[in-house]
Amino acid sequence: MGETDRNSPIGVFDSGVGGLTVVKELMEQLPNERIIYYGDTARVPYGNKSRETVIRYSREIADFLCEQNVKAIVVACNTASALALDELNKSVDVPIIGVVKPGARAAADVSRKGKIGVIATRATVNSGIYEAYLKGKRPEIEVFAKACPLFVPLVEEGLTDDPITDSIIHMYLDELLEKGIDSLVLGCTHYPLLKDSIARAVGKDVTLVNPAYETARSFKALLEEKGLLCESGSRSGNEFYVSDSPDQFRNFAGNVLSISIGAEDVKVKAFAG
Amino acid sequence: MGETDRNSPIGVFDSGVGGLTVVKELMEQLPNERIIYYGDTARVPYGNKSRETVIRYSREIADFLCEQNVKAIVVACNTASALALDELNKSVDVPIIGVVKPGARAAADVSRKGKIGVIATRATVNSGIYEAYLKGKRPEIEVFAKACPLFVPLVEEGLTDDPITDSIIHMYLDELLEKGIDSLVLGCTHYPLLKDSIARAVGKDVTLVNPAYETARSFKALLEEKGLLCESGSRSGNEFYVSDSPDQFRNFAGNVLSISIGAEDVKVKAFAG
Repeated sequence: MGETDRNSPIGVFDSGVGGLTVVKELMEQLPNERIIYYGDTARVPYGNKSRETVIRYSREIADFLCEQNVKAIVVACNTASALALDELNKSVDVPIIGVVKPGARAAADVSRKGKIGVIATRATVNSGIYEAYLKGKRPEIEVFAKACPLFVPLVEEGLTDDPITDSIIHMYLDELLEKGIDSLVLGCTHYPLLKDSIARAVGKDVTLVNPAYETARSFKALLEEKGLLCESGSRSGNEFYVSDSPDQFRNFAGNVLSISIGAEDVKVKAFAG
Repeated sequence: MGETDRNSPIGVFDSGVGGLTVVKELMEQLPNERIIYYGDTARVPYGNKSRETVIRYSREIADFLCEQNVKAIVVACNTASALALDELNKSVDVPIIGVVKPGARAAADVSRKGKIGVIATRATVNSGIYEAYLKGKRPEIEVFAKACPLFVPLVEEGLTDDPITDSIIHMYLDELLEKGIDSLVLGCTHYPLLKDSIARAVGKDVTLVNPAYETARSFKALLEEKGLLCESGSRSGNEFYVSDSPDQFRNFAGNVLSISIGAEDVKVKAFAG
């Protein structure tokens, strides 16, 4: 690695549009930083793909972000964080952080009874990574993980507040509530968009943990520690790359997250194959 | 192209597991044929990808099937049929058939009032291809197309017969019923698995058209016409290729379709990128 410039942009990537929930937190907590985002919208979702495939895709994207001279990378996708972060740490020269560890740490901190629910994609659940981190922090913790594959399409259909969504939330979460969980990790980037509906379903005795928020906090601390915080407010525009249609991406950003992205700020960059 | 051997296998491909509904029809209507199936489970779904991406993926797979010496190809994916069939026809040397045309032809035949509903993925709906075929057959036909992005994840969650699914079916289809449709094309390979629930929702005055069934019929006629029907009952085992985890594929085949596939009959073949 050459000299890292603290005024270089930060790189953020996700399997698709969901990582914009992390971008939103980064924008709030690190308003001076310029962001280069990659959303792998042609190959989304990662959540039902194998470990090998997710590692291969993540490597391609991390290499691409490094070619854009990013000073650090946030893996905004829970699945990629769960399956590929260790491998990326070996192959990437800049500091890199995922969303799983900050989310798990926060959950371990807030849980009183040590009974923690984790909802995520099938791949993240099968990886057992939240459980491993949580037990690493507090060995007595009991973790109840549940894959919720319908949540992402519900969000992408705009059904964030709908009786159908309420029914599906109960279908997935009632068994976790029966286990007596006192906190629940929203372990997929889309899930914070269902926060209000999930909060209604689980009641006020269950604390929701949003890894997007926790990750932005941890990432800020990491940049501070490495002397990599941007110097001034001279921040120019963010850049967004997607592997498929830019329009769908901009629609999601605008409608669901109220992040306005200009047409000229989204470029298409697909990988071979 | 060299000499085509009528005892060569037939190739079938889909973006994932859904094309197995077509395989099931082919097995019933063409019991002597040996099938080589490719499911692009690493890159599924195609339904929200751009035309260029779907063409690129479809070409890779068609080329791969030709390398396996198939005598003809069925594009079992509605999205790939809608977006890529014309391109494949130019580049592939063996006879090739999609699911859209047979489905549209059957719908045009059964509709009395000429008001036809089409449900499919967003990409298929946006392509306007069912409408184009239907109006090509009967110019006075009115087509009401609706994308139903939640149907595939519902099927993959095994919720083929569930009150939640009934609610979602009504959410999508009530507007088509208000238009007075008298037939409904199930324009995505997963949708026939919701046939009973959809039939309940639309009532018996709306005829459901299953392109998987119609495609197998048309394909049989095509093989007959070209003198490519397999000679004898000496059919050996089918082969299945997937671009991601074989286990998930076999589970879906077994649980949802009652097609039993041996572990040794599923191989992984991924494309670069």
